[in-house]
Amino acid sequence: MRIGELSRRTGVPVPTIKYYVREGLLSAGELTSPNQASYSDAHERRLRLIRALLEVGGLSVASIRDVLGAVDDPDRSVHKVLGAATDGLVPRYANGDESPAAREKVRELIARRGWRVDSAHPAAEALTEALAALERVGHGAFAEVLDDYASAAETVARADLAHVGRHIGLDDLVEGVVVGTVIGDAMLMALRRLAQTDGSSRAYGEG
Amino acid sequence: MRIGELSRRTGVPVPTIKYYVREGLLSAGELTSPNQASYSDAHERRLRLIRALLEVGGLSVASIRDVLGAVDDPDRSVHKVLGAATDGLVPRYANGDESPAAREKVRELIARRGWRVDSAHPAAEALTEALAALERVGHGAFAEVLDDYASAAETVARADLAHVGRHIGLDDLVEGVVVGTVIGDAMLMALRRLAQTDGSSRAYGEG
Repeated sequence: MRIGELSRRTGVPVPTIKYYVREGLLSAGELTSPNQASYSDAHERRLRLIRALLEVGGLSVASIRDVLGAVDDPDRSVHKVLGAATDGLVPRYANGDESPAAREKVRELIARRGWRVDSAHPAAEALTEALAALERVGHGAFAEVLDDYASAAETVARADLAHVGRHIGLDDLVEGVVVGTVIGDAMLMALRRLAQTDGSSRAYGEG
Repeated sequence: MRIGELSRRTGVPVPTIKYYVREGLLSAGELTSPNQASYSDAHERRLRLIRALLEVGGLSVASIRDVLGAVDDPDRSVHKVLGAATDGLVPRYANGDESPAAREKVRELIARRGWRVDSAHPAAEALTEALAALERVGHGAFAEVLDDYASAAETVARADLAHVGRHIGLDDLVEGVVVGTVIGDAMLMALRRLAQTDGSSRAYGEG
């Protein structure tokens, strides 16, 4: 199809599509004449993925480029590919002060849960930074929820991996993990708000 | 204290502090002479909160202004204040195509869980948009995780509300909810990655 048709099908303006091609998020169409290119269903699918990562995942163009790099890596083993995709999707924060207490809490948590993860994992760093931020704003006591949160995270991860095992072939694996990770975060945050609202209504509401 | 001391204590540069004052995130210091202002411990605490929302929560300056508006609202009832704070913290997405199927799934989920929430709640909208995005990218099957995610969200919300009941007085309530909501999201996302990595290692790893 021509770029105009690709634009109509996906709702993405033509200049935006060209921008994604220039930024390396989307491969160029196949040239069918010196100034005309043809786009395939694979282009359409990739374009929808980019939009979902931008709009629902809130990822930057640079993050999307990194993540799609993992999607397109031909050297695939399930565990490595899962690791590359999820590492690229750990939110990164500006560095605050170093907090040895927060670091120790994360190390203890990983040991207590029996998780087979390196304590230098990017997500462990992100968790350390979040706990350090709690301390800085005077709400260090909130860390008491850690084990309940960890149980919830295990429930979620079990559902994620069961879905991977049931539905996703190796070809779709990274794309599925990326979509499930990014949109799954958005789902989980929304569900947390709904469950909080329900709980608050029961505890403090009028009836 | 003078603005230079406030800057040293918090690590926030003086021009940035002045920017927050201009943007209405931080109240101006008390003038002690025509060109000198004095800042209090309350300023320092508020400044640390702003930094945590920016750096860990990833909120925009405009979102922070809205949320701090709820923090400072003198008209407080626990349920209303919790609602205002969490509503302001629901991530908003660009609108995609309307999806009646996604909307129906959310309505059914809320009924199935027995949650006392309006199906027009901003978080229900956010969940609808996330499910619609899954469909658009061809991964609608991922919605099968919804009930496991909802169980995890209930675990998290119970821990959140128990913390509120135990530790937070009415004065600190909104600030505590804001901190717990924003930093709690970051904690939960990091823990989800760690639990996924552990599960992937057990299912697909080398040993």
